[in-house]
Amino acid sequence: MIHYSEKLSWTEFHELANEGAIGVIAVGAHEEHGPHCSLLTDTIISNALAERIADRISGILLPKISYGESWSVNDFPGTITLEPETLTALVLDIARSVKKGGLRALIIVNGHYGNMSPITLAARRMRSEENYPVLILNFPELETIAKSICESSPAGGMFYHADEFETSIVLAEYPEGVKMEKAQPDYPEFPPAYGETQVLISSFNPVGVFGDPTKASAEKGERFLAAFTESCMKIVNDFQKTL
Amino acid sequence: MIHYSEKLSWTEFHELANEGAIGVIAVGAHEEHGPHCSLLTDTIISNALAERIADRISGILLPKISYGESWSVNDFPGTITLEPETLTALVLDIARSVKKGGLRALIIVNGHYGNMSPITLAARRMRSEENYPVLILNFPELETIAKSICESSPAGGMFYHADEFETSIVLAEYPEGVKMEKAQPDYPEFPPAYGETQVLISSFNPVGVFGDPTKASAEKGERFLAAFTESCMKIVNDFQKTL
Amino acid sequence: MIHYSEKLSWTEFHELANEGAIGVIAVGAHEEHGPHCSLLTDTIISNALAERIADRISGILLPKISYGESWSVNDFPGTITLEPETLTALVLDIARSVKKGGLRALIIVNGHYGNMSPITLAARRMRSEENYPVLILNFPELETIAKSICESSPAGGMFYHADEFETSIVLAEYPEGVKMEKAQPDYPEFPPAYGETQVLISSFNPVGVFGDPTKASAEKGERFLAAFTESCMKIVNDFQKTL
Amino acid sequence: MIHYSEKLSWTEFHELANEGAIGVIAVGAHEEHGPHCSLLTDTIISNALAERIADRISGILLPKISYGESWSVNDFPGTITLEPETLTALVLDIARSVKKGGLRALIIVNGHYGNMSPITLAARRMRSEENYPVLILNFPELETIAKSICESSPAGGMFYHADEFETSIVLAEYPEGVKMEKAQPDYPEFPPAYGETQVLISSFNPVGVFGDPTKASAEKGERFLAAFTESCMKIVNDFQKTL
Amino acid sequence: MIHYSEKLSWTEFHELANEGAIGVIAVGAHEEHGPHCSLLTDTIISNALAERIADRISGILLPKISYGESWSVNDFPGTITLEPETLTALVLDIARSVKKGGLRALIIVNGHYGNMSPITLAARRMRSEENYPVLILNFPELETIAKSICESSPAGGMFYHADEFETSIVLAEYPEGVKMEKAQPDYPEFPPAYGETQVLISSFNPVGVFGDPTKASAEKGERFLAAFTESCMKIVNDFQKTL
Amino acid sequence: MIHYSEKLSWTEFHELANEGAIGVIAVGAHEEHGPHCSLLTDTIISNALAERIADRISGILLPKISYGESWSVNDFPGTITLEPETLTALVLDIARSVKKGGLRALIIVNGHYGNMSPITLAARRMRSEENYPVLILNFPELETIAKSICESSPAGGMFYHADEFETSIVLAEYPEGVKMEKAQPDYPEFPPAYGETQVLISSFNPVGVFGDPTKASAEKGERFLAAFTESCMKIVNDFQKTL
Repeated sequence: MIHYSEKLSWTEFHELANEGAIGVIAVGAHEEHGPHCSLLTDTIISNALAERIADRISGILLPKISYGESWSVNDFPGTITLEPETLTALVLDIARSVKKGGLRALIIVNGHYGNMSPITLAARRMRSEENYPVLILNFPELETIAKSICESSPAGGMFYHADEFETSIVLAEYPEGVKMEKAQPDYPEFPPAYGETQVLISSFNPVGVFGDPTKASAEKGERFLAAFTESCMKIVNDFQKTL
Repeated sequence: MIHYSEKLSWTEFHELANEGAIGVIAVGAHEEHGPHCSLLTDTIISNALAERIADRISGILLPKISYGESWSVNDFPGTITLEPETLTALVLDIARSVKKGGLRALIIVNGHYGNMSPITLAARRMRSEENYPVLILNFPELETIAKSICESSPAGGMFYHADEFETSIVLAEYPEGVKMEKAQPDYPEFPPAYGETQVLISSFNPVGVFGDPTKASAEKGERFLAAFTESCMKIVNDFQKTL
Repeated sequence: MIHYSEKLSWTEFHELANEGAIGVIAVGAHEEHGPHCSLLTDTIISNALAERIADRISGILLPKISYGESWSVNDFPGTITLEPETLTALVLDIARSVKKGGLRALIIVNGHYGNMSPITLAARRMRSEENYPVLILNFPELETIAKSICESSPAGGMFYHADEFETSIVLAEYPEGVKMEKAQPDYPEFPPAYGETQVLISSFNPVGVFGDPTKASAEKGERFLAAFTESCMKIVNDFQKTL
Repeated sequence: MIHYSEKLSWTEFHELANEGAIGVIAVGAHEEHGPHCSLLTDTIISNALAERIADRISGILLPKISYGESWSVNDFPGTITLEPETLTALVLDIARSVKKGGLRALIIVNGHYGNMSPITLAARRMRSEENYPVLILNFPELETIAKSICESSPAGGMFYHADEFETSIVLAEYPEGVKMEKAQPDYPEFPPAYGETQVLISSFNPVGVFGDPTKASAEKGERFLAAFTESCMKIVNDFQKTL
Repeated sequence: MIHYSEKLSWTEFHELANEGAIGVIAVGAHEEHGPHCSLLTDTIISNALAERIADRISGILLPKISYGESWSVNDFPGTITLEPETLTALVLDIARSVKKGGLRALIIVNGHYGNMSPITLAARRMRSEENYPVLILNFPELETIAKSICESSPAGGMFYHADEFETSIVLAEYPEGVKMEKAQPDYPEFPPAYGETQVLISSFNPVGVFGDPTKASAEKGERFLAAFTESCMKIVNDFQKTL
Repeated sequence: MIHYSEKLSWTEFHELANEGAIGVIAVGAHEEHGPHCSLLTDTIISNALAERIADRISGILLPKISYGESWSVNDFPGTITLEPETLTALVLDIARSVKKGGLRALIIVNGHYGNMSPITLAARRMRSEENYPVLILNFPELETIAKSICESSPAGGMFYHADEFETSIVLAEYPEGVKMEKAQPDYPEFPPAYGETQVLISSFNPVGVFGDPTKASAEKGERFLAAFTESCMKIVNDFQKTL
């Protein structure tokens, strides 16, 4: 059962906190995902997963953070990027408040690579300064799951962006966020020293797609969500043992 | 027509920007609103209004900010409060990005008193540093509209919180966010020098209600939204003349 | 009796602190007030009021802060504006020090609208972090008092700047700060969506006057100060009950 | 002739700026100066000097900053200390504003040792970021002048604080700021490694006096001010040649 | 040929810059590496590699940064950890200066996992704000190289810390930094949800070793350095093509 | 005996800490020192001195900080300058860590004038926030020692930079850091109001030398180091009495 904080009054929140409820929150992004896929793709995906996790642990689902750290695509119209310091501060303020409000722990379902460092920094400060447990989930077992579901392979062997995986989940969760007729595969050639330099993606991938979204389907999206729910719940179960 | 950014790809966003689209975003709060009303009340209300304004101007509706500056009720379980610096940074990052993405202007529909200063500071910096127009709407004509619709009067003559006004809109927009059986009026006695000192509301209003929510109805909520849409559109029309 | 800190040594300050003395400080501005009125108008007015309040409560009058947050007139020569963060830090450092020095509370007499948010933020942090009481006075009952004394009405129905009210007090307190021969009324037409956008005042009011200073007199200034002293003391008396 | 900004309207300030006027501002401190001498001693002295310099160059005298960086005596009741970052920000905001307002340069008359670093940092940023000239005067030729006027010698050979020098100037400028009957000499033994460690002065000098204030007189104060005016003007004249 | 900046005067630096020289700098850590291995292990390794790279490209070798971000082992005596903001600022100041000094690019040889985010943020800001190229090398092909040289396997399948790899290089480069008689293998059991939570390593690995250092030898260290030099130079060559 | 932290494992560091060891660290600069002398001159000198002090007290010698605050020569190629805030943060992070690691105190050997304020601020915060003793050594008795050893006199009567004193120590400690054939004396004429304004040294001293390095010799360098070791140890001995 999901306890959406949007449905709760403070007294109801208080009761759930007293019963040991854990908070769950998705952090996504508002950034280009090719000509066919929603700007909110990462937000849609992470929130879908956050709902499933909250459901399993009867957690309180907090409103998603729809904006993330999107430096590498910041020059695409439609991308809205937060400075890493802003995202760290935002997560830290939220974490401090849910601790004060009595939640036993906070689980962050992250849907975007760029968010990892800023969120981790916030989580570390919650540990050091408040000794408060924060779990961060970054699509555990992504490679294995993608390999088992996708027909196409990821660009550059490891980049999943606006591709079969992401497009499938948006098709499953928010079909109005996909225009399949605009989907097209793109396996860009990565520039020299790509991983070690700070390159804007637009310079070699002006379309904003890594991989092949034409193979996407809502059915695959459901399978992805089911698989990630299991891979996440293994970690969540472990986490709960430490509380 | 509302252009939800959640439905847009970056190329679609780009086209709308080229046609002169304006961005619209709601900023709410995640804070106590009595035992009967949603923690997200201010977010629900501001986003409902933002939708109506985006619809009128065929604007791009950006994902709402569900967390705000809620210092004065920060000790109620369920309240999640941002430091003002965090909210300023968040709004500034978003505004810089939409400017970079080509939107002609940004309209912020604010649903919470505590957000006013941090948002205004961000808007001023957009003006000074980037010469970018940002409009902030704070429930224009609130007193007049409330007087014309409500049966009850506001607490302390001017405080509207979890009352007939707010509860009515949540009933209209998100009925699962209200439990009318828990609604109860509260006209607290304000402590001496209330407005001039920094007092936590819990110290004199432990229930978290200002006014009489028992008079609320969805029908009144619809009337409120219609009236605010008009009061806002007068300003939006003026604003558009300055662009 | 006013205890000017300028006349006190630290041992005398210490004795007064031990007897329960309260600190009083004015925060003004250094900004344009038309061609006839002192750049320090807000500082002169707030300090005049701070003196009267310190006198009534035998408080320690701290040196005034002569600079404030004056973004909206920052392009007039002579305006000196502080970033809001600077003003918050300044007030916070002072408040922490007087708490450490043993004063029972701090009363801030604010003479300028733009200072309200930065000062309030400092006061909140004193409450949250140090549980220290800070009272902020912003010309209580201004509208009523102005209506009872002034012959002219305020510009835009609510803006008092370099007008009959302010000019009168400067005439009373610091006559060398006014050149009545340069005084001229100005009732500018406010631009569309003035309150909701971030507009520099110079763009529609190049003279820097809101209202009619030609009706000003020192005698009215005295009446203003007397009236504000009473409206402030009601609040100060309430505040003292909470200490 | 001194142009007090307090007497100026913005149009008058503008005219003076157009004629090439320079701004002059004193930065003092609000800190213990023994049982006999004003908490504002450093402010009184630096402002007295700033007036004389403004007079010589027909400069615009800005309102003094009465608070400074007083870490080393922060535990004496009555000391109000600013964080160095606060003082840097304050001076920087003022300098940026006077540059924007058209003043040709800014002269800072500093009355307190602890202020030197924070003010210098602000001045450097004005040079690097805005290429704006700022002169900082720190009692030039202090040792020589003190030797020629004082009967007593400084504590530790070099520390002048609440002593014959400072007390004399306060006697000359603001006699109500001195109670000579409480004055007493103090030549504390400085703790080992005093200059190289961070020691609060109270730990070895609980009275807060360095030197012998009993030798002070208003007449000596006048001589001090006259001498410093000359030592400063040599530098100011040099400075003016670089503008 | 290595151009140690320590051997250069500014005129020599200037000439090299004019000839197109690139700067090379190592960033290490000062943190526990078991009972047998130097606190500076990561610094020693990264600087050894930086020397070899500088040699290949006739670069200017800047003084190493011996301190890094070591949160996860901050409670071991001897660990000195920088806040990530400090490290970002430090790298940014250095990068701005070498750009100003005329170096064509900066290559950062990073020897410690925790430094990656702070350094990357600095590099991104150099790209966005100054359009300056910064290359960051994080032991490219580490897994492959380690597999080909080491007899032992890494702890947890992927953690190399004070193990055969690191100890070997210190033996080769700075033998007085290793006491082999204290070396002992440690393959700790990682706590549940280790990667997703913020756990101090001391809680499950009080000795501070991941893997088996007893297999280390100076000869292996040389082979490691040779192999990394090649894996790095592939990237450096690619990088130089982009300049 | 010097305990280089580079040679220590954490367990060895821990034992020394338990025995009461003190940390010693040099802070230098990476800035122009004329056409003949190393960019790292201040670092070389301060570290040489730090070694001698660590040796006398059997302290733990931490890795030197090779970069400092070099604003006044920031436009010479080869100068790398830190913002003062960066240097303060760096020293503060290190000091907090050594306190946490159990060292009894920290001694900072500073080799560069510009570092004094930023380091002092860090030391004050260690005192105020952590009550931790930090000693800062700034070439005690410099004038006396220089007068007794040097044949040449300092530029401007008090500026020692790339001169006989500094060049001699580099000759003694790191002879490859000096090219005597490029050494040339320079006694620049200081611009008007030099000490009171913020002037880049390049504007009147394009060569970057203050004084006469041609008189330098390694033998004098040894005498300098011996003399400073004694002048420092007097203070260190005093400092140790306060612990």
